[in-house]
Amino acid sequence: MMTDFSLFETRLMGRLLRLAAKRRGLTGSTPMVACALLQDGKVIAEGVHQKEGTPHAEAIALAKAGDAAKGATLYVNLAPCTHWGANPPCASLIQQAGIKEVVYAMSDPNPLVAKNPSELQLLDMGIQVRTGLLEADAKRLNEVFIHYQKFQRPFVHLKVAQSLDGKIAAANGESLYITNTRSRRQVHRFRRESDAVLIGINSLIMDDAQLSVRFGLIRGGYRHPKVVILDRRGRLHGGLRLFQRRVLPEVIVVTLPGVQLHESVRNRVTQVTLASEDVLEMWPLLLDYLGQEGIQSLLIEGGAEVYSSALLAGIVDKVSIFMAPILMAQSKALSAFHRSGHLGVSESRRLTEMTMKQLGSDLWVTGYLRDPASI
Amino acid sequence: MMTDFSLFETRLMGRLLRLAAKRRGLTGSTPMVACALLQDGKVIAEGVHQKEGTPHAEAIALAKAGDAAKGATLYVNLAPCTHWGANPPCASLIQQAGIKEVVYAMSDPNPLVAKNPSELQLLDMGIQVRTGLLEADAKRLNEVFIHYQKFQRPFVHLKVAQSLDGKIAAANGESLYITNTRSRRQVHRFRRESDAVLIGINSLIMDDAQLSVRFGLIRGGYRHPKVVILDRRGRLHGGLRLFQRRVLPEVIVVTLPGVQLHESVRNRVTQVTLASEDVLEMWPLLLDYLGQEGIQSLLIEGGAEVYSSALLAGIVDKVSIFMAPILMAQSKALSAFHRSGHLGVSESRRLTEMTMKQLGSDLWVTGYLRDPASI
Repeated sequence: MMTDFSLFETRLMGRLLRLAAKRRGLTGSTPMVACALLQDGKVIAEGVHQKEGTPHAEAIALAKAGDAAKGATLYVNLAPCTHWGANPPCASLIQQAGIKEVVYAMSDPNPLVAKNPSELQLLDMGIQVRTGLLEADAKRLNEVFIHYQKFQRPFVHLKVAQSLDGKIAAANGESLYITNTRSRRQVHRFRRESDAVLIGINSLIMDDAQLSVRFGLIRGGYRHPKVVILDRRGRLHGGLRLFQRRVLPEVIVVTLPGVQLHESVRNRVTQVTLASEDVLEMWPLLLDYLGQEGIQSLLIEGGAEVYSSALLAGIVDKVSIFMAPILMAQSKALSAFHRSGHLGVSESRRLTEMTMKQLGSDLWVTGYLRDPASI
Repeated sequence: MMTDFSLFETRLMGRLLRLAAKRRGLTGSTPMVACALLQDGKVIAEGVHQKEGTPHAEAIALAKAGDAAKGATLYVNLAPCTHWGANPPCASLIQQAGIKEVVYAMSDPNPLVAKNPSELQLLDMGIQVRTGLLEADAKRLNEVFIHYQKFQRPFVHLKVAQSLDGKIAAANGESLYITNTRSRRQVHRFRRESDAVLIGINSLIMDDAQLSVRFGLIRGGYRHPKVVILDRRGRLHGGLRLFQRRVLPEVIVVTLPGVQLHESVRNRVTQVTLASEDVLEMWPLLLDYLGQEGIQSLLIEGGAEVYSSALLAGIVDKVSIFMAPILMAQSKALSAFHRSGHLGVSESRRLTEMTMKQLGSDLWVTGYLRDPASI
């Protein structure tokens, strides 16, 4: 049940969220979870879920505590699982260990679990339950996992690097290195946290982008993301730097039906044909496909055509804008987003839950396009 | 001489800068100054310069301390004056009071004083001097005053209200109320701190702007700024809301020679004719004129034509951009700054000393266009 929590409990859950978040980008298709056992006002054991297929946070904490867990209160940022997966259900382990009470931040977003909530199962086992402690923060932490559980489509994060006056490329077409090293490094962090990055063929060719994780950020178990290329007419070729990467990631090329890819890439990529002349209709089909492929998180890297159609199609969940401290002040410089029509201010898309951070002289702004209550 | 300062002294000067800053917009053509007297490690008196023509901060503090000032150290954010103005020179008062040492943050920017620095005059009087404590902050506080002393032209602050994607008006022309109340309130604070605001005739007519200080911010001695209208062809007319204001401020209308203003405004404004067909040549002439009129600070309010030519003419000192958390994403929406040509990223204008603040869901970014060392 939803209830009041002490400052100590709030801080403890805050600590668990931070511990869990350290595994961002490392837990694959499984959520970030941390757990603590509290006995007589003291934390006697903590557990953090490390990666897909390894023990859950609750199992780690319970194993550490051993017999001392009897009568303890268990804190965890996600409802303990009640079903057999790669691991035995945590609810059973909790019961066996003699845990008196379970406090969790948010329910399991799995629609199957919703029919038989963890709360009821734990109560049936004679375990007290309190829920909702830092629920909003817990949902934000696992926004990707929750989104995928609910929609079986990737959570879409769109990133833009622009000048203060909203330009992503100068009048002469230059677009590289508008933002500073700290901003670019953050984009590489986004990449390592994403299952796939998506780019339009124009930008891929213009920037000759590698789309790999660099800045020394790939060490320690992180992966390079898969690459999705929107290339409806089949302009991709093997001379691009992407194909010079030491280990080529899975590359998914989205074309119209009947398009034949250049022989230099034909056997090195997965071609997906989507029969939608209208690019706005393409997006939901593509997300369905990527979802079926197990891609939970998609980072849209550009360029303007891709940004614009994604925004207009309504498939963007989160936007991060990196702004360099420059005014490009050029009539022919390129804006990230365009849309025709005699539109008014009220027809703008509004970002919610804005956060901002200064990265040296750059500015990093993040916001959400969907109502956070809907995730 | 430039020297090291204790943490206590640094904090004391920080306090003086904050005290002085409370008079922002109230000191007219005189600088914001605060002063403290330190005797045996204790502040025995403080003084804050209130407004033009009233006693200097040093005089106030010395009068408060009376005989107790003898042997004290005097801290002040601007070098004590050594010349007769509306007040007797502070240096003499300091000597008469028996002050042992003077610590000031920055020298007097008056070019006349530079030939005979306060420091030397104080040393001649047998008073010890240390300078440079929080000098950069002190210069920032009185940036307008310093600029005017140096160039006899107004310090130019350009403010833009835009969407995150850099648009100041929607495709249908709407531009009002893009940003939130807190941003707009801050713009009204800028107005009350400016001697004059400047607007192009297009924006004035489109927005029917009053250009007054509202949001309850005019109480307590603040003034509405003068209004400068760039109206080269003489389109101004008395039907605008500006002319319905209860008390019309001084309105300066800048036209080309030979342009006759509409009879509804002819006797209500000051017409200034500047014979420069090229708007870029107009700017320095206009600033010279405004400087001669005693206008130390000018706030540029818009619109795009005015922003662009001011930026290109190189006369903008400071830029404040207020960003609403929206993506306008409209091809025909208007950017603040434009300039023709096949230009690259390196031909952008770079802002230095960026600061940013979240105003509710809006974002406020400020930066400088000139090298801060040059003020």
